[in-house]
Amino acid sequence: MTSPKYRSHFSLANIPFGVASSPKHTIQCATRLDNTVVFLGILQQAGTFEDVRGLPSDVFNRPTLNEFAALDKPIQREVRARLQLLLTDDLPPGSTEDISSVILHMPVSVGGFTDFSCSLHHVRNAGRAILNDETPPPGFFNFPIAYNGRASTVVVSGTPIVRPKGHIIDRTAPTEKKPIVFGPSKAMDYELEVGVIVGKPVPREKGVAARDADEHIFGMVILNDWSARDIQGCEMVPLGPLNSKSFGTSISPWIVTLDALQSFKAPGPTRDIVLANHLEDITIVEASYDISLKVDLMANENTTTLSRSNFRDLHWSGRQMVAHAASSGSDMRTGDILGTGTVSGSEQGSYGCLLEMTNGGKEPVVLEKGLKRVFLEDGDVVQMTALAGKDGSGVGFGECVGQLLPAL
Amino acid sequence: MTSPKYRSHFSLANIPFGVASSPKHTIQCATRLDNTVVFLGILQQAGTFEDVRGLPSDVFNRPTLNEFAALDKPIQREVRARLQLLLTDDLPPGSTEDISSVILHMPVSVGGFTDFSCSLHHVRNAGRAILNDETPPPGFFNFPIAYNGRASTVVVSGTPIVRPKGHIIDRTAPTEKKPIVFGPSKAMDYELEVGVIVGKPVPREKGVAARDADEHIFGMVILNDWSARDIQGCEMVPLGPLNSKSFGTSISPWIVTLDALQSFKAPGPTRDIVLANHLEDITIVEASYDISLKVDLMANENTTTLSRSNFRDLHWSGRQMVAHAASSGSDMRTGDILGTGTVSGSEQGSYGCLLEMTNGGKEPVVLEKGLKRVFLEDGDVVQMTALAGKDGSGVGFGECVGQLLPAL
Repeated sequence: MTSPKYRSHFSLANIPFGVASSPKHTIQCATRLDNTVVFLGILQQAGTFEDVRGLPSDVFNRPTLNEFAALDKPIQREVRARLQLLLTDDLPPGSTEDISSVILHMPVSVGGFTDFSCSLHHVRNAGRAILNDETPPPGFFNFPIAYNGRASTVVVSGTPIVRPKGHIIDRTAPTEKKPIVFGPSKAMDYELEVGVIVGKPVPREKGVAARDADEHIFGMVILNDWSARDIQGCEMVPLGPLNSKSFGTSISPWIVTLDALQSFKAPGPTRDIVLANHLEDITIVEASYDISLKVDLMANENTTTLSRSNFRDLHWSGRQMVAHAASSGSDMRTGDILGTGTVSGSEQGSYGCLLEMTNGGKEPVVLEKGLKRVFLEDGDVVQMTALAGKDGSGVGFGECVGQLLPAL
Repeated sequence: MTSPKYRSHFSLANIPFGVASSPKHTIQCATRLDNTVVFLGILQQAGTFEDVRGLPSDVFNRPTLNEFAALDKPIQREVRARLQLLLTDDLPPGSTEDISSVILHMPVSVGGFTDFSCSLHHVRNAGRAILNDETPPPGFFNFPIAYNGRASTVVVSGTPIVRPKGHIIDRTAPTEKKPIVFGPSKAMDYELEVGVIVGKPVPREKGVAARDADEHIFGMVILNDWSARDIQGCEMVPLGPLNSKSFGTSISPWIVTLDALQSFKAPGPTRDIVLANHLEDITIVEASYDISLKVDLMANENTTTLSRSNFRDLHWSGRQMVAHAASSGSDMRTGDILGTGTVSGSEQGSYGCLLEMTNGGKEPVVLEKGLKRVFLEDGDVVQMTALAGKDGSGVGFGECVGQLLPAL
């Protein structure tokens, strides 16, 4: 289920793609205008896209967007242009429903989920919080560092997240050597990220240069990389995170295309070193996007805004993430998700996870009505939103929301 | 293509499952007796399995084994028993071909690939080689440590592997701070592993106890976790391996079922600490299998046996790997592969990768005719084989073979 309150995110300038169903409509690809969900399978059957060259018949009458996302960009652009024209007019009967009566599903089938760490502020803030050392990881400025997450547990916004159990170092033990115990995480965190959705695949052993990689990016979503910090601290050396992340990752239901984001280009980061050729990005002045991100925490019926950050502060672009992941010979498949890693700014109020906000769990965050949080408590709802450009831009991502449920 | 030389691995006591095609047969599920490939789609159409309760019609007329692997064990056992009876007799015409005229394909569609590090000898040997420190990783004795690999690049035996390019620390640079450069790996290695194939799925948030997890293991294959050690050394801190492994992972084509391995049970490891309840394994005397593993290197037309080790020396079982991966709430899906990590023994001749054999690249291995290797050279062929029990047991895995091709 989804909320009607993001009406202003979905103007004619957006035309996002998702997957929807309702009592009246079988599951199929859809778009959204204001608070109206438009069922694209119905539109295609009515002949709306008949003269779009290269568009497979019945491509929208599918439970995922993968087949459409894999197409060449000009075909996707033509569909978008057609929709922008059409949606100003009356639509065929039975092709629309109000957002409040519709169920939104995972927009793509996810074959691979690779999570990066693209924010210099995040690695500095997190390093300071955990190790009292701001030094970024050794390769940070040379390539976007990343690990593979669990693709099967990427879930759509609204899906509850159960507090995971795992192995944890018991730092309260009176012994000098702290024992490892198994139990529910006591350090549940969110990570405010953006997920890049791979469109047209990159074949194995072909690679792709960052400057050409937009052709392989269908669009972007908000991504919450739920993290159990205590499990992570116990398992991460030397092979990286596994069970501290694999229990669930949430994404927003509407994929905002790069075409919709064209008007919101922003300068990318400056760099001190020369990159490998395949990582050299497009011209710096439009290498990023101006996308405001926000995290709200709903705790005991009060809502507190925890942080505001911006996509343009990332040190690496989606194009560079794709180029790096494909650079040693791996393919990239349609529906693969590449997470940016936590999008943080340099100061309090712009930190994209509680680990940073609480300085590693040492300084509680004060919420509305004096409530405090070090990490998430059962019942807490984390709501992330994203908007391109300024208020009224008409291009937003809606929300990525999830409630933390007690351990089983 | 596959070699006829493993005839003795595939007696009536084995009955492995794979996927095959030929000019005469469309791609479908198959088994192998001696050097004869038996096409199970054809057999099922001929009515062979008609009275096997719960077996879906046409389950073998598929390009992967996933649908069959997901079934309850009693159904799979009944099919195996039926085949053991049937194969002693004449088979329906057109249902068999000699192994030499058949193409073997990936036996399952792999949704997730998680690679563990279950060998205490390997972590000690590798630690000594890289860091001059044998201390296992912090959690090693508490749970089987692991990372997620790239599922889309798991390939079937016989598929060539292209030497990957990646970011590497240039240790030859005259500067004090060694620069990171991008280029072809100069430290290509193999890792001798066994892959556990998930059968009946484990739902999200359900978990499974190790002692019950055999129900979710369809069978096992040989797995070569090709590794670019120099790329790995540059990227691994702090998020673990990514591009140093994601270019390709090879598996043997025939899945040997746990039923076929029943006669080869062997004692598991002794432990000093009490495990979390879900990791407590079945009775120690039959917690493992006696499976001999061997690596041969074919270089310049000479074959040298590089190592022999045994599955029973692993510190963690396949059941424990499944239980750990599902313990924080992740599902396990049919076709997921869980790699054991390098299977090594405690002494030279039993080390499962070149990193260990060459003491971190410092001491070359001497091959037949005086050739030497520190790491793999272009054109080298790595061939891994595995046999349950002693010579003549009749239950083997055949081979997992791959040639290293020059960087593109």
